Amino acid sequence: MHDENCIFCKIANGEISAATLYEDENFRVILDLGPASKGHALVLPKQHYANVYEMPEDLIGKAYIVAKKMAEKMTDALGCDGFNILQNNGVTAGQTVFHFHIHLIPRYEGDSVGLHWQAGKLTDEEKEEILKKIVG
Amino acid sequence: MHDENCIFCKIANGEISAATLYEDENFRVILDLGPASKGHALVLPKQHYANVYEMPEDLIGKAYIVAKKMAEKMTDALGCDGFNILQNNGVTAGQTVFHFHIHLIPRYEGDSVGLHWQAGKLTDEEKEEILKKIVG
Repeated sequence: MHDENCIFCKIANGEISAATLYEDENFRVILDLGPASKGHALVLPKQHYANVYEMPEDLIGKAYIVAKKMAEKMTDALGCDGFNILQNNGVTAGQTVFHFHIHLIPRYEGDSVGLHWQAGKLTDEEKEEILKKIVG
Repeated sequence: MHDENCIFCKIANGEISAATLYEDENFRVILDLGPASKGHALVLPKQHYANVYEMPEDLIGKAYIVAKKMAEKMTDALGCDGFNILQNNGVTAGQTVFHFHIHLIPRYEGDSVGLHWQAGKLTDEEKEEILKKIVG
């Protein structure tokens, strides 16, 4: 199941070359061409799934085992100080290519990667409303 | 394997109450008390692992299957426009509690969640250097 208009399908399957850090039957891990930090990489499934909702359960499990292994390997190799593992779904969440991918972002003290938020407050009213919606 | 000084151990195992969206033998999913957005939740393993490096492979796979299921359920229930799945390791990466956790962050158009970066450029020199370090 490939989408012939999808650049990440072409990269994951080797039709377009990319700096490959790892490859197995299901995934290719490549360096991001517009890196947030030194070593920023992407885990790409070879099959086309637009987002986390479309990913089969077994494959999502496998994708994050790859992500964990790469985080270890990259941290050792790059000597980074921290590590973010981020996956975005939808334009509003910052997704720009609509083929599921996991960002592996090595972090270095004083880098300019902005992954943070202003912590809000969970009021009792909001808590009850959300619990009712999600748990029922 | 619990750390008696770890607040997320206490929450995950029910010793401190929290607004629980989901629970199984390995995980508890709770609402974050300092939410980035409405519905911001955390997947917590019941066993204590400080970060992704310490998490066993089978458990990391299971944790993200829970994350996927919750993303679907929360998106349906909350009607959000996008969804971030983020996991931080180390102070430099924004980790504040040193018990592995996955942030489930529903996104809404116009919200103030800052998860973005200035895309750099992957030069040929840097690419070769990184490939050599990681792939060998």
